Amino acid sequence: MTPEQVQASPEPAQATLTFRHLFGPGPSNCYPEAIAAMAYPVLGHLDPLFIQRLDRTCEGLRKVWGTANARTLPLSATGSGGMEAAFVNMVAEGDVAVIAVNGLFGERMCEIARRCGATVVRVDHEWGQPVDPERVLAAHPHPKVIAAVHAETSTGVLSDIAELGRDKGDALLLVDAVTSIGGLELLADEWGIDLGYAGTQKCLGVPPGLSPFTVSEQAFERRIRDPRSWYLDIGLLGGYMGAATGSRTYHHTAPVTMIAGLEAALNRILAEGLDRVQARHREAASALQSGLQDLGLELFAAEGHRLPSLTTVKVPDGVNSGAVRRYLLEHFSIEIGSGAGSFAASIWRIGTMGPNANAGSVKLVLGALEEALAKA
Amino acid sequence: MTPEQVQASPEPAQATLTFRHLFGPGPSNCYPEAIAAMAYPVLGHLDPLFIQRLDRTCEGLRKVWGTANARTLPLSATGSGGMEAAFVNMVAEGDVAVIAVNGLFGERMCEIARRCGATVVRVDHEWGQPVDPERVLAAHPHPKVIAAVHAETSTGVLSDIAELGRDKGDALLLVDAVTSIGGLELLADEWGIDLGYAGTQKCLGVPPGLSPFTVSEQAFERRIRDPRSWYLDIGLLGGYMGAATGSRTYHHTAPVTMIAGLEAALNRILAEGLDRVQARHREAASALQSGLQDLGLELFAAEGHRLPSLTTVKVPDGVNSGAVRRYLLEHFSIEIGSGAGSFAASIWRIGTMGPNANAGSVKLVLGALEEALAKA
Repeated sequence: MTPEQVQASPEPAQATLTFRHLFGPGPSNCYPEAIAAMAYPVLGHLDPLFIQRLDRTCEGLRKVWGTANARTLPLSATGSGGMEAAFVNMVAEGDVAVIAVNGLFGERMCEIARRCGATVVRVDHEWGQPVDPERVLAAHPHPKVIAAVHAETSTGVLSDIAELGRDKGDALLLVDAVTSIGGLELLADEWGIDLGYAGTQKCLGVPPGLSPFTVSEQAFERRIRDPRSWYLDIGLLGGYMGAATGSRTYHHTAPVTMIAGLEAALNRILAEGLDRVQARHREAASALQSGLQDLGLELFAAEGHRLPSLTTVKVPDGVNSGAVRRYLLEHFSIEIGSGAGSFAASIWRIGTMGPNANAGSVKLVLGALEEALAKA
Repeated sequence: MTPEQVQASPEPAQATLTFRHLFGPGPSNCYPEAIAAMAYPVLGHLDPLFIQRLDRTCEGLRKVWGTANARTLPLSATGSGGMEAAFVNMVAEGDVAVIAVNGLFGERMCEIARRCGATVVRVDHEWGQPVDPERVLAAHPHPKVIAAVHAETSTGVLSDIAELGRDKGDALLLVDAVTSIGGLELLADEWGIDLGYAGTQKCLGVPPGLSPFTVSEQAFERRIRDPRSWYLDIGLLGGYMGAATGSRTYHHTAPVTMIAGLEAALNRILAEGLDRVQARHREAASALQSGLQDLGLELFAAEGHRLPSLTTVKVPDGVNSGAVRRYLLEHFSIEIGSGAGSFAASIWRIGTMGPNANAGSVKLVLGALEEALAKA
């Protein structure tokens, strides 16, 4: 390249550099360490230095998953890709999947399991309520898989996974931890999770694009051989993505830069201490939830089951949900989320995740929301 | 976060900051604009500013694909995920796919098409030779899909796609452009490509993690409804990823940071000018190929069909391929690639892609290789 060519690149539009406070359901703002690491020199995906980075990343993921599973790795897809990987590797024609549905992501599990050919037994719950382990466990005598969402992003509800794990019998327990990993207590081994997927763009404070994934020995043994997906086949990924099988074979080119960001965020979280990070999320959400009620607003998620990462609140009668969100965006560069599904216009979702789980973020969003409610 | 917590993060290991000259088959080194853009403030995936960015990115992708297809977008997966998306949306049980195989990626197409339930008619070629359009077109009277790799990353061979497009009849033409997009002439509409996928980590000079994807109206009309994959279902993606359908609906959280990097690299390439970028790739590869022959080495890919992005060269008799690669890595921080498949130890693959397509990179790799051949 000549100097002229190097200078040929246009300046980014001013808009490109606008900072947003990302208080929606995700992506959240990222830990600065993650962003910085994505500017590290790019490594080849088979470089010994990258393999070491990948090993360190998998080790960090084991800690936030609460697992010793050898097969714990960052899948090269977003959280929804992780959901697909979980089902495509576990169920095929004739397999029964019992799926707890208490929000959009339980719904999505049913759709993906159906496309995998599974016989889906759905156990519906009112949105805003936690999963009822008894009903889920009683839904079928011998399912291959029982699936549930730990932290429902669409409703802001936390469900008890341990109880499902305790009484799952021969079933494999498949769990969505997208909005819990890295910010909430998550004990995959202790709770009996056999297969879990998550996302990077919530409490982990990393941009979206990877799905932290973990598979127990038992689940790996009972996986679908020759599954419909080649890209997400954990039988092929094991060799590349971890030390699990002892050999490294080329499967696909790993997203090396995203993984550098994930490693750095995990280091940041583990250096702060998982307990302290979890406490920070709890304290921020608790302050936010109190503050919202002080503003006269009503919380959506059932009391006692509210997420410490994402708070749902009802839009007051007579208030235009979209107008408030636009006001926040235009006056404060704050993003909060609308509701999902049939609650799109009647609830807001406010995330305080990753670096945003702090007292200042709570003050900011509460103060801005108070003004927006008065003026929007 | 308290200041103490912010400081709790450990310094990255020195190794993390090692710069590599990435002269392998990819990832290549990235355009600095791409890396810089990945540090722009993170935007929500539904933010109006992000939607504008996505639209600009799709418009830039149309230019490097040489297409007016409305459905041209960055898929949230690597190039191999793009390959899977191409087949899963186009073939199911009973559909015939004629696949040209002249290297590893043609092989992979067969495996993925098989998992989609297709009847695969493979047309084998000697590795190192281009696809023979006549044999491919004669392989089956009425295939639904004819698939070929434009630039075979495993062998360094360029194939003529236009001839397949001219005589494809009712078949849909599916093309892998992973190692051509952004550096070689690629004219999807003129050549009759109905469905194409690519990667970001080669001539586009962006880290791996996205698959630039394009779908003609005809291919979209004849897609599989309710395909096996939910994550890669182009019927669902259209609404989110482009202005094509007029409505934006939530499907999955787009990898916003990777897309910022892709947009910036596309801006960089288009500002330099596609013609000039292509000339730069041709000139670098030509200098490299001459230089390798001057060193007494024999090129692997058939003359007249050598890629201007990735050069394959035979390992001389008596030379240990791995020892030379290690010497380059240890003494010059240069990565070159081994061969693929049964050629793993008998060829090297040297990429001069993206920002590495320049005269200086060629001097560097030739000089270093000469020393390595003498001393390794």
